[in-house]
Amino acid sequence: MKILIVHAHPEAQSFTAALKDKAIEVLKAQGHEIALSDLYEMNWNPVASADDFLDRENEDYLVYALEQRKAVKNKTIAPDIQAELDKLLWADLVIFSFPIYWFSVPAILKGWFDRVLVSGICYGGKRFYDRGGLVGKKALVMCTLGGREHMFGEGAIHGPLEDMLRPLLRGTLRYVGFDVLAPFVAWHVPYVSDEIRQSYLDECEKIFTNIGEVEFLKFPSMSDFDEQLYPQK
Amino acid sequence: MKILIVHAHPEAQSFTAALKDKAIEVLKAQGHEIALSDLYEMNWNPVASADDFLDRENEDYLVYALEQRKAVKNKTIAPDIQAELDKLLWADLVIFSFPIYWFSVPAILKGWFDRVLVSGICYGGKRFYDRGGLVGKKALVMCTLGGREHMFGEGAIHGPLEDMLRPLLRGTLRYVGFDVLAPFVAWHVPYVSDEIRQSYLDECEKIFTNIGEVEFLKFPSMSDFDEQLYPQK
Repeated sequence: MKILIVHAHPEAQSFTAALKDKAIEVLKAQGHEIALSDLYEMNWNPVASADDFLDRENEDYLVYALEQRKAVKNKTIAPDIQAELDKLLWADLVIFSFPIYWFSVPAILKGWFDRVLVSGICYGGKRFYDRGGLVGKKALVMCTLGGREHMFGEGAIHGPLEDMLRPLLRGTLRYVGFDVLAPFVAWHVPYVSDEIRQSYLDECEKIFTNIGEVEFLKFPSMSDFDEQLYPQK
Repeated sequence: MKILIVHAHPEAQSFTAALKDKAIEVLKAQGHEIALSDLYEMNWNPVASADDFLDRENEDYLVYALEQRKAVKNKTIAPDIQAELDKLLWADLVIFSFPIYWFSVPAILKGWFDRVLVSGICYGGKRFYDRGGLVGKKALVMCTLGGREHMFGEGAIHGPLEDMLRPLLRGTLRYVGFDVLAPFVAWHVPYVSDEIRQSYLDECEKIFTNIGEVEFLKFPSMSDFDEQLYPQK
């Protein structure tokens, strides 16, 4: 498989980075091709703006998604976005590696979604969810967080982690058509012992050795909704 | 009241900006004091990094939240963060004005949360939710989006918008202790008629004229959980 890893952590020696390195090691050993976007190392610009378009459809008023549609057609999107888009379209599987900040991705990664998941290619009109532009590709979220596992789930203080990650798993990754694999989560990372960290690395190795066996999350299908996107009677 | 408006839209003439301007006009007319953080205009840096600390607790290994705790105590946090933090602590009500990008906030605003909601002041240890550091303040989300209203709600294709906004409303704003008001949402904005836009401006005027009457969202209370944050028996 062709695998893109999008990694976002401000500390190169972090445990999040160690998990990413372990994933690369295991996947390479199996003969997969790997591309890495290390957003902090690349000094990735996360801010969507008019500067993202080398030539504007409308110079006087910016509608970001409309400019994206023109720019991807005419190849006038900013080179840093085009480079990421090329990697994204090349990949069969995209792994997102990051620490949870505010029950979500760090801003630098949010801005990768904002700028790279372009209208006209990744989605557009009624091309979303199981009709999204990236149908056939897989995505996997690999994240670390400070909270303990018992603080998440039904009845727990924060509720299920997947509910907190809904705009990412469903609203972003599934929206553009990815088959979304069950996330890999390392809990309580800043506070755990080396033994527990090693057990996370072992779990990471196991998951990436058997990546074909990770279950897919389930989402609604467009075929359950009519042309106006109301539920089918 | 002292009111901070945090606004994030790449187009100064946008309808999102018009709603923000309407809110300011109405609130000023009632005698409220207003501060504005227009993140695009300020060229706000959304990327949390080691540069956010003028003096490091640990120069060799960055744990972002730990550095925050030291830096807010010693007043060694980066000046752009300190300025926003001062406005945040001054405000009784904070309004977040933005277009929905990927069922969430634009990256530039995500990075305001990542950098400004500092550990040690806004939260820390078991000081979160109804024991968060900003208890007593109110927050209101005012957002625009491309989707139609019937695409959100129970049984709708995207489910309830508040479920998509959970990491923001609950995981961020309520986490630090805000009383979170019911969001103000303008649907289908890029595609609607001037009449419908006017009706949104009218609705905005009404809401901000009667800001004391907007209902609060309901969230779990820390008192329902024990010292280890397990549900109380």
